Amino acid sequence: MTVVTLTTDFGSADGYVGTMKGVILSIAPQAQLVDLSHHIPPQDVRRAALLLAAAAPFFPPQTVHLAVVDPGVGTGRRAMALRTPQGTFVGPDNGLFGYVLAEAVEWTAVELTEPPGRPARVSDTFHGRDLFAPAAAHLACGAPLESLGPPLHNPLTLPLPRLEVGPRTVTGEVLYADRFGNLVTSVGRLEWEGEWLRLAPAFRRAPTSLRLPTTARVELGGRTIHTIRHTYGEVGEGDLLALVGSDGFLEVALRQGDAAARLGVGAGAVVVRW
Amino acid sequence: MTVVTLTTDFGSADGYVGTMKGVILSIAPQAQLVDLSHHIPPQDVRRAALLLAAAAPFFPPQTVHLAVVDPGVGTGRRAMALRTPQGTFVGPDNGLFGYVLAEAVEWTAVELTEPPGRPARVSDTFHGRDLFAPAAAHLACGAPLESLGPPLHNPLTLPLPRLEVGPRTVTGEVLYADRFGNLVTSVGRLEWEGEWLRLAPAFRRAPTSLRLPTTARVELGGRTIHTIRHTYGEVGEGDLLALVGSDGFLEVALRQGDAAARLGVGAGAVVVRW
Amino acid sequence: MTVVTLTTDFGSADGYVGTMKGVILSIAPQAQLVDLSHHIPPQDVRRAALLLAAAAPFFPPQTVHLAVVDPGVGTGRRAMALRTPQGTFVGPDNGLFGYVLAEAVEWTAVELTEPPGRPARVSDTFHGRDLFAPAAAHLACGAPLESLGPPLHNPLTLPLPRLEVGPRTVTGEVLYADRFGNLVTSVGRLEWEGEWLRLAPAFRRAPTSLRLPTTARVELGGRTIHTIRHTYGEVGEGDLLALVGSDGFLEVALRQGDAAARLGVGAGAVVVRW
Repeated sequence: MTVVTLTTDFGSADGYVGTMKGVILSIAPQAQLVDLSHHIPPQDVRRAALLLAAAAPFFPPQTVHLAVVDPGVGTGRRAMALRTPQGTFVGPDNGLFGYVLAEAVEWTAVELTEPPGRPARVSDTFHGRDLFAPAAAHLACGAPLESLGPPLHNPLTLPLPRLEVGPRTVTGEVLYADRFGNLVTSVGRLEWEGEWLRLAPAFRRAPTSLRLPTTARVELGGRTIHTIRHTYGEVGEGDLLALVGSDGFLEVALRQGDAAARLGVGAGAVVVRW
Repeated sequence: MTVVTLTTDFGSADGYVGTMKGVILSIAPQAQLVDLSHHIPPQDVRRAALLLAAAAPFFPPQTVHLAVVDPGVGTGRRAMALRTPQGTFVGPDNGLFGYVLAEAVEWTAVELTEPPGRPARVSDTFHGRDLFAPAAAHLACGAPLESLGPPLHNPLTLPLPRLEVGPRTVTGEVLYADRFGNLVTSVGRLEWEGEWLRLAPAFRRAPTSLRLPTTARVELGGRTIHTIRHTYGEVGEGDLLALVGSDGFLEVALRQGDAAARLGVGAGAVVVRW
Repeated sequence: MTVVTLTTDFGSADGYVGTMKGVILSIAPQAQLVDLSHHIPPQDVRRAALLLAAAAPFFPPQTVHLAVVDPGVGTGRRAMALRTPQGTFVGPDNGLFGYVLAEAVEWTAVELTEPPGRPARVSDTFHGRDLFAPAAAHLACGAPLESLGPPLHNPLTLPLPRLEVGPRTVTGEVLYADRFGNLVTSVGRLEWEGEWLRLAPAFRRAPTSLRLPTTARVELGGRTIHTIRHTYGEVGEGDLLALVGSDGFLEVALRQGDAAARLGVGAGAVVVRW
């Protein structure tokens, strides 16, 4: 039972996702379907790229990850399937897999030029249903990647999130606010080492590894946060703190509250200074 | 592994949908469950009817589609199961399957008078859990339709969406705005034929097939749109356009934006004139 | 195919739930995953506890219910797995299973001290992924409860919802408003007996069983409702009524409308008086 995950900006009201699942199960009845998110902000390719890179390592490596955030549907943008040691990915070639690629030690990609299997009409506006879902289903059934189209050597990449190391500073950016209002930043990956935080830059950047003292302060949105802790419960209710989020990135949070709303921040620079 | 889809207006917060799934899996542990939508606007039977008619053809024909949008629960409205070449449908007899019926070349229906299997108490307010879920589960296990109740010959229908063909005009209506703010209309089914759009009226109406020039203009909400294109990417950012949506109906969209918000329209007439 | 349900306050945008599912399927590829709700209001342990107690009885008894509403993650709060005749439960020991415990005639619990299987690093902020999901997956594969940790004899309980029986009155509280705006109260469990309502107090309280006349009135939020009916359809559109909800608790509803919005109420006392 191969797992097929789905990541889109389709929302959950309109039946678009359900229709894609119907197409997948018509071809691969044994597929185990898992929704990663259908609430990517409309056409926010980068947010989806971050989510895919964070979630894929927790799935079995034979998983097929179908992703459709596709503002260029029907235009010249290419369609692709990508195999990495952490899974197989199917979707538009618009940077959606840019952070998966940035993590991959090796990869192979093909261009999807037409739906596999019996050829059907491909609509101009819903390649998720007509092209990507059939391709993902055939891959879930064991079709070789190469059978789906010609090699694709130059998939579109995405600029890496900001991460600059200076003398006694690290500068990053707020990536997004999660459902709890925690501000997830690009400062990572971090790992605790006793009283220090070891920084091993994410996305296979040059391996600048350094140690940050937990007495460092975190500046964003004109505010300074003096408290870096392991977990929410170590500060008082309503207090701001910085911590290492579950994917290893620095987060700014408000205990039992919404840091994004309190700070009025959803993007912008973040500086760790010591 | 028979697929059972679920379509409701229950939302996703309250556990009602999960409870129905527990009932289904208690009877049919092998069922493959797929959510079509649980965010149908409360009690909007027509929206659910449109979604079911659009999505069902993409599922295996042995799929059981369970749908509960049920303002009349506990009153005299009947409960039904319906078999068509495109799937089996279970839910209240309140028009929910009206557009599936309008598409079906043949069908059989029965009235559900009590839950199949070991009889249990049926609540007055949640037939989704107590009546429809058990019926859908038994059908997924292969129970014959006829075993679930007496024949039902006159299921409730729904008025078909507006579609009037005049001299050099087609008049329809806005059906709804989707998650992206695209205004989906009843003008369809449309298919591209070179520079023309072939109109083959939906829901098995009288087969008035005609060709519209793509120089036609689209009027709705006091505005006129002069641009009919294959896909979003063919106009500039922030421009309005009309296109053929993934189900073959004319849509009005705004590239990288929300047409419904821009036009302040969510319902009303749409006229294609040339 | 053991069912594993998931209940969280994670929402559906961020990929946290999908990541937990990846962990589960990596250990238990045959698990059948069902979402109960991921829209529990952030950190509302009691709402999740009510949902779990209401939904679990409708699942096969071998189901594993994974629940993560966890304001105390990373602090001293314990982690637990609980077996009752109505299912197995995994999550933080913070009262989340308090109403399941209140219903259970017998139970066994263990403290989860580390993830089962090959030991991995447990993050400070996401025990759902690093501790609870692996435990739930191993239980779904048949691991004995006892293999997961030492016995836990005193799991945290929750105060039972208010229910006071006076002379010709029953006093309870509004528990929450559901998606339709129906106000679900703690007055129950109720069952119709002809023209009377039999009250059998929920959560295995002292068995004060009494009969309420349906001419009783229901007071909440400064308003009095004089109409107790079996179902919504028995009053006019826009009229308020009280009825017995699908879980046997008294609800206040507005036909084809939102009672919570109309009454401006989402919590507080409710009195049934006759």
